Amino acid sequence: MKAKVYVTLKKSISDPKGTAVKSSLNQLGFQEVKEVRMGKYIEIEMQDMPKEQAKETVQSMCKKLLANEVMETYQIEIMEGQK
Amino acid sequence: MKAKVYVTLKKSISDPKGTAVKSSLNQLGFQEVKEVRMGKYIEIEMQDMPKEQAKETVQSMCKKLLANEVMETYQIEIMEGQK
Repeated sequence: MKAKVYVTLKKSISDPKGTAVKSSLNQLGFQEVKEVRMGKYIEIEMQDMPKEQAKETVQSMCKKLLANEVMETYQIEIMEGQK
Repeated sequence: MKAKVYVTLKKSISDPKGTAVKSSLNQLGFQEVKEVRMGKYIEIEMQDMPKEQAKETVQSMCKKLLANEVMETYQIEIMEGQK
């Protein structure tokens, strides 16, 4: 089974990477872009287990390693039966 | 409106970051983890426009800046009416 984790900076935290990408996009002619937020996208291939257990396990991975909870928030998606 | 872009390395490309995260997770006791792929998660806040036009615009952003098409693939999600 596969888990997808999206880690982003908290809204209150400034995002210099996002600001840089936004101004580059504007310079490339994409004036419609108002704001850009950059984050991490993590795909985890795991042994099969019940969905709820998988979610708790991945939450524990986020707390211990994948996300810095002081500055970042994370969302978890569990995809059953996906390679 | 908001666009979400997920940029990941092509399967054929080795992912040293993902390998490092996988071994760290295994060392932390998460033996159920078999593989980890790291990528970029980008949120773009844009002026409202028709969904199809927004998708084409973001695809153009990916080709020009957000993704390196030699090594990476990307997925785009358009969220209408979302701040």
